[in-house]
Amino acid sequence: MDSALLEIPDITAISAAAARIAGEAVRTPLIRSDVVDSRLGLRVYFKPENLQRTGSFKFRGAFNALSRLDEAQRAAGIVACSSGNHAQGVAEAARLLAIDATIFVPRDAPAIKVGRARRSGARIIAYDRTTEDREALADEFERRTGAHFVHPFNDPDVIAGQGTCGLEIAEDFAELGESPDRLLVSTGGGGLAAGVAIAMHHRFPNIAIHSVEPEGFDDYRRSLLAGGRQRNTRLGESACDALLSDSPGEISFAVSRMLLSEGLTVTDEEAFDAIRYAFAELKLVLEPGGSVALAALRKHAVQWRGETVVCILSGGNVDPGLYARVLGGAG
Amino acid sequence: MDSALLEIPDITAISAAAARIAGEAVRTPLIRSDVVDSRLGLRVYFKPENLQRTGSFKFRGAFNALSRLDEAQRAAGIVACSSGNHAQGVAEAARLLAIDATIFVPRDAPAIKVGRARRSGARIIAYDRTTEDREALADEFERRTGAHFVHPFNDPDVIAGQGTCGLEIAEDFAELGESPDRLLVSTGGGGLAAGVAIAMHHRFPNIAIHSVEPEGFDDYRRSLLAGGRQRNTRLGESACDALLSDSPGEISFAVSRMLLSEGLTVTDEEAFDAIRYAFAELKLVLEPGGSVALAALRKHAVQWRGETVVCILSGGNVDPGLYARVLGGAG
Repeated sequence: MDSALLEIPDITAISAAAARIAGEAVRTPLIRSDVVDSRLGLRVYFKPENLQRTGSFKFRGAFNALSRLDEAQRAAGIVACSSGNHAQGVAEAARLLAIDATIFVPRDAPAIKVGRARRSGARIIAYDRTTEDREALADEFERRTGAHFVHPFNDPDVIAGQGTCGLEIAEDFAELGESPDRLLVSTGGGGLAAGVAIAMHHRFPNIAIHSVEPEGFDDYRRSLLAGGRQRNTRLGESACDALLSDSPGEISFAVSRMLLSEGLTVTDEEAFDAIRYAFAELKLVLEPGGSVALAALRKHAVQWRGETVVCILSGGNVDPGLYARVLGGAG
Repeated sequence: MDSALLEIPDITAISAAAARIAGEAVRTPLIRSDVVDSRLGLRVYFKPENLQRTGSFKFRGAFNALSRLDEAQRAAGIVACSSGNHAQGVAEAARLLAIDATIFVPRDAPAIKVGRARRSGARIIAYDRTTEDREALADEFERRTGAHFVHPFNDPDVIAGQGTCGLEIAEDFAELGESPDRLLVSTGGGGLAAGVAIAMHHRFPNIAIHSVEPEGFDDYRRSLLAGGRQRNTRLGESACDALLSDSPGEISFAVSRMLLSEGLTVTDEEAFDAIRYAFAELKLVLEPGGSVALAALRKHAVQWRGETVVCILSGGNVDPGLYARVLGGAG
């Protein structure tokens, strides 16, 4: 597709999304810690999207996208593919809007995420991440049933919804009378990064925004360097199950190449360290994929000394067994 | 002491404390969860004091009390006794105000709490909870060195400082245009309960406020029933290390008998269940003593159906090993 034909959400679309999700999504606070600031040598504002409804930012985009469906579309139901957080967001949004939801979930998705999507009333269909193509499965389902497919990131309404996270950050900074120098955002397909970048850049045009990815799944970092979308070659070998999309979304990359700075990466061990740090210093439960921005912050703090940095903690849906092992020092 | 001679802080003292701690303490947000509300059948606002500086509300009272010392008192240093959260609050407040701090800590206090007090620069002296009298130890130290003793709860400045937690809740409710029916607060010596009760009752005179204690350490519940201060007979056999004071403080009880409703209790297993619930549904790390209000909320939700309830999550300083065991289903 020619990028000139892409529908890219703007600040107006994000403001409209904010009005749609108001009262349903949690308006998460900005959190500071003097101890963290003094240890890292900079001023950090955390945006704890682990406190969001369904435990990650994904509810924002899902609710916005589903709110825009017309009566006939709602009656036909929706279908989605997700390793977990998008599944929960979509399932809960569908429940609230009384829409029938079917979700294709890889067999190796964390039990907590799948259980929550099921609890919201969604029909769950498991597939094998290594042998089956989830998009083909969903396509076939869509053709057969007429259900509307909700893409996890390559959808302007989803991106506008995720952008409300950035809009809230921008509003809170305006109220504080402060300006952020830098923002770190975990990136899988890049819907959150794109939406947040549009909202933040609108108010703070000089901010540096970094995508953060698991090492080996750095399709964004490489795509930004190459100036075109690159694919990951590895599949399913990171603890950061939420961040394993195989390439940047078309729309989100079109936004990102304009608005993002250098992409950053962290190892699984650095993500686990960040989980332990959030446990000890912030008292927040993070999942591996939700901790990578914090991991990158700790890794690069020395370079950014004295700056004001926003760090998005994108999710907290982690199985208790894994969390207990991470606290014990293992992954 | 005749209760007529007690100095009881009022709303003016709490407002003054709020001005003193501003910029040093975290103004913790109120957090809601639609999922929790629909599961429990009421509207809950959580006040997450685990996100407070030093990981519990104790920093509020400590910083307020230490701010009020004059130059000569500051030069002589301060001394405190604490199983951990007061120790951390006092140590950090002393560090910020450049006051020398000595803290008597029981040998069985959680390592994370003692380590943090030490990190803030306090001198730690361990004692045996079963054979030594901590107040006598601190008294002797005070006489010998001239240090000022900072009581964990029986001090009007400490109570006024803890009251800022209630003042913030009251302010946030005024902004929301809502009224709480009920408030649940974990209670050891009762400094938090008293301060919060003064601030909340000032704005919401019809609110029901419940102390929540570990079963077997229900000195508040029994004292409220008897109309006079009762002692606990058990010592050191609860997981809720933060809540093991042996009787209500004189000042806090004088407040509580006027402003508190029936006292509630929970078992250690109910506190552990609440820790797991906060992990799964709120993504917040709570310590056992910090989870008892949530445990009581879950226990009594059916009786309070449809009400708006405030639940103070008073602390999150828990050793990772214990936390991992609790997540695994054991205490």
